Amino acid sequence: MKTQGYNGTSVKDIVDAAAVPKGSFYNYFESKEVFAVEALEKVASESFEASRDMLNAHRDKPPMERLYRYFEENADFACGGNFKVGCFFGNMCQEMSDCNEAIRTKVRMILKRKTKVITEVLDEAKASGGIREDADTEVMAEFIFNAWEGALMRMKAARCREPLDAFLAMIPKMAK
Amino acid sequence: MKTQGYNGTSVKDIVDAAAVPKGSFYNYFESKEVFAVEALEKVASESFEASRDMLNAHRDKPPMERLYRYFEENADFACGGNFKVGCFFGNMCQEMSDCNEAIRTKVRMILKRKTKVITEVLDEAKASGGIREDADTEVMAEFIFNAWEGALMRMKAARCREPLDAFLAMIPKMAK
Repeated sequence: MKTQGYNGTSVKDIVDAAAVPKGSFYNYFESKEVFAVEALEKVASESFEASRDMLNAHRDKPPMERLYRYFEENADFACGGNFKVGCFFGNMCQEMSDCNEAIRTKVRMILKRKTKVITEVLDEAKASGGIREDADTEVMAEFIFNAWEGALMRMKAARCREPLDAFLAMIPKMAK
Repeated sequence: MKTQGYNGTSVKDIVDAAAVPKGSFYNYFESKEVFAVEALEKVASESFEASRDMLNAHRDKPPMERLYRYFEENADFACGGNFKVGCFFGNMCQEMSDCNEAIRTKVRMILKRKTKVITEVLDEAKASGGIREDADTEVMAEFIFNAWEGALMRMKAARCREPLDAFLAMIPKMAK
């Protein structure tokens, strides 16, 4: 579903990938929609833990440097797999937000939580003088996170690292 | 296709929307893939003309202010239609880049041309002292355009204007 999208993935694809008989799918999930919402939640939970760990590693470094490293690690990871896949949340958001309310609501909540993690680092940066003291960290976090999502999307089309490097190059410019 | 995605749109949906008999589709398009590539090109051509017109209007204003207005007008437009749809190119990029080479190549080319339009304004801004003279306008244009695409994507999930406003708020910060 991450690579082929929601509509591009059939229940048969899912049970084949899990090597279980097709009938058993409906013992666990009421529908493909319910499966997708649960898949989003599972990937999101793992992603939040990983994000906090990454952002809290190297606490001796200034917050903006930690933010840079965080995206740099994510960029390295994203470039694996021949620049495919990108962000599961972003992919589902683009494909399904307009036509599926359950998926849209779940994606919305996940993107909000992902943004909050960045707001926290920016708040630290603000408190320690790493960014301007009149910076609106929520607006800035929203901007940065969405810029990252857009860069990931572009990476898939360009099939190269350039969009992610353009993103990374702009992070230090946001520091004071 | 803009709202329902590639896989979510059948040939029947297309002929129904055009009010022509189903059989006639294949007189004009070899396949749904060919239709999608031509649709992308058509929307892109219109979009380039509109972009240049918007960016070249108010030539008495400084380039960075014109860039801001350009995105502001685009934001107003994007907020119509209950925050659905977003960007056709971005939507197709997210859904199809990983699994359809013809669509990926077309989207890649379109996003490149869209970015070039922004690079031109940034070059003007650089020449007239609106941004730092050591700015890499290509990297900056790529960053700004991808950030815009990410904001549009987020708008669809959040179904509100906030992500676009966060984007707009950061444009003046990139000026000198």
